[in-house]
Amino acid sequence: MSTTMPDTGPLKDKATPKINKGGLEGVVAATTAISKVDGTAGQLIYRGYDIHQLARSTTFEEVVHLLWFGHLPNQKELADLHAKFAAERSIPDLVMQIICALPARTEPMDALRTAISAWGAISVSGKPTIEQAIAVTARLPLLLAAFNRHRHGQEPLESQSELGHAANYLYLLTGQVPKEEHVRGLNSYLVLLADHGMNASTFTSRIVASTESDIVSSLVAALGALKGPLHGGAPSKVQDMLREIGTVDNAEPWLRAAITNGVKLMGFGHRVYKTTDPRAEELREMARVADPQGFIFSRRVEELSISLLDQLKPGRRLYTNVEYYSAALMDSVGLSGDLFTPTFAISRCAGWTAHIMEQVNNNRLIRPEAEYIGPMDLQFVPLSERE
Amino acid sequence: MSTTMPDTGPLKDKATPKINKGGLEGVVAATTAISKVDGTAGQLIYRGYDIHQLARSTTFEEVVHLLWFGHLPNQKELADLHAKFAAERSIPDLVMQIICALPARTEPMDALRTAISAWGAISVSGKPTIEQAIAVTARLPLLLAAFNRHRHGQEPLESQSELGHAANYLYLLTGQVPKEEHVRGLNSYLVLLADHGMNASTFTSRIVASTESDIVSSLVAALGALKGPLHGGAPSKVQDMLREIGTVDNAEPWLRAAITNGVKLMGFGHRVYKTTDPRAEELREMARVADPQGFIFSRRVEELSISLLDQLKPGRRLYTNVEYYSAALMDSVGLSGDLFTPTFAISRCAGWTAHIMEQVNNNRLIRPEAEYIGPMDLQFVPLSERE
Repeated sequence: MSTTMPDTGPLKDKATPKINKGGLEGVVAATTAISKVDGTAGQLIYRGYDIHQLARSTTFEEVVHLLWFGHLPNQKELADLHAKFAAERSIPDLVMQIICALPARTEPMDALRTAISAWGAISVSGKPTIEQAIAVTARLPLLLAAFNRHRHGQEPLESQSELGHAANYLYLLTGQVPKEEHVRGLNSYLVLLADHGMNASTFTSRIVASTESDIVSSLVAALGALKGPLHGGAPSKVQDMLREIGTVDNAEPWLRAAITNGVKLMGFGHRVYKTTDPRAEELREMARVADPQGFIFSRRVEELSISLLDQLKPGRRLYTNVEYYSAALMDSVGLSGDLFTPTFAISRCAGWTAHIMEQVNNNRLIRPEAEYIGPMDLQFVPLSERE
Repeated sequence: MSTTMPDTGPLKDKATPKINKGGLEGVVAATTAISKVDGTAGQLIYRGYDIHQLARSTTFEEVVHLLWFGHLPNQKELADLHAKFAAERSIPDLVMQIICALPARTEPMDALRTAISAWGAISVSGKPTIEQAIAVTARLPLLLAAFNRHRHGQEPLESQSELGHAANYLYLLTGQVPKEEHVRGLNSYLVLLADHGMNASTFTSRIVASTESDIVSSLVAALGALKGPLHGGAPSKVQDMLREIGTVDNAEPWLRAAITNGVKLMGFGHRVYKTTDPRAEELREMARVADPQGFIFSRRVEELSISLLDQLKPGRRLYTNVEYYSAALMDSVGLSGDLFTPTFAISRCAGWTAHIMEQVNNNRLIRPEAEYIGPMDLQFVPLSERE
């Protein structure tokens, strides 16, 4: 892999650390006024507001409004947005038929990708609009919940117009008005994950938007990227790891062996953060409240991992990422493991649509170049003469 | 927009033309051994072979083999690939039901996106494999042709195992074994469009693959990008323009007015090519043969456009791009205007899948950064106190 920076040979001094690591690491692909990730300070900002404050004091709808329109809504603006969301809470018959035709074993992310693609095929055309952003953001939880009920042999439910986005999603999954603490926990999660700079799925959504394609094509692309285990597709693996470790007593020998043998620890490390992910800090506090017993164990594993990594792999510091405590929180509000990633999508849809609008409002096709490293000037041989 | 290169103020001399134009222009996003686009020389290379030679002397299957496996197939290898394609020529009942449930007015690209997503949901999981690349490349024409027949009130047809990829696609559209000249023309088109460096849809497919997502998620994302008018989504606009110009006599005044008023000429200009697109040269010759009468007119409009652009906008040279003569060719083999872009997708699927395999075989998550230009340190105000 290479960037436009020429390879200048071995580094002479530390003042020129322009080593190309590939994967566009450190390459600025766009300007944005939506969110800022400061990986060194461990800071995440949505349009000027620190994520810690937002996670503790706002709902998903408030943050969607902030990301889309640039300011936190007052009560009237929030009521308006709630009404617009509520008006979009329906699934066309054709899309429901497709959802209910999918086999129960279908991965929920694939079901969501297919359902939103079908919805877009019959509902959306032309350049992205804010009305379309509202329509699609409102519908993602409906489509997912409908598939989840279908695969468990249950009838999909009708939305409850008086419930907010998080509460209605939980209602559509279970058929019961959710507990206030679950709604609060899910709102905080949806706020924390709503945007995160130029992550792979957001970048994907902006590239598709930059071709002047439609909003659903952008979202379907973003869903595909989020599904990947290196992005949002492996949050339940933290639980698998914690289950495998099993007990506090087993934690140190298990982790020591894993680190020594180069086994990847789940829920640690991030491309951008060189310190603790601020979202992980919030989720840690939420997990502490939601499941005090389980928290003692996962907190112990976290502390041990960091100190053992520091001891066994000095110089290669890894910190807890957003996935580590996500699982505990999602679990505590009653979501099964394979709903974690699509629930992440329900949150990130806010950021994707905000970035799509930002891209199309000041667009230039995103079209990089490649460095060709293959053969040149090969002599063509006709099929009949090839050996 | 900005890159990592610092703004060094006004240019002092022409030796440092590092102006950032945004859209990752000129930024190398990956290395590849699949294709090379030399925009200055007007050259396109697939794995060492010049596109002119390939367009005149190979079929789509030969080029797919070249792109995937790095060498042109001998007769046995080609027969093997044909057999593998033929074995994949089926549409599961569920996917056919979805295709036939879509309204006739659905855009073919949306239908294709939804159908392939549904097929992936029930057929594909895990990391991309070459078997999956074969399965999906074989199926795209089937899915598109089935939708095309459905929307025209016709029953989808069964594939003919003895026909090659291009011929079988034409058969599935019409129910008739196509003329040899049509098969040859479509093969040349499919060869010419099969890959093109780090274009927006290919880049999209690689980003999704870099998250370790599945091959269909990558392809669905790429389809969404190709759909955009700034990428592959507006090939029939050339025909619209030619129809509007109407006559040779009207060409000069029409073009002069258009250029003077800043109206975009369809089928001209490309991010990378600073001279004629070599694919356009091939398509021009094919159009000359396929429709000699229509060719005289479109060739005259091409020549006039280039000379008028040179005269009225000196320094801003634009050359014919791949779209200009694509329309004429597609028309000549009997494809309707809204099948041009999905037929482009049937071709580019070869490149997408080759790039996906190349990405996953030496993977690093593609995750750039963004430059934040929004506000900082805003004071949070609770909802009840917001004005």
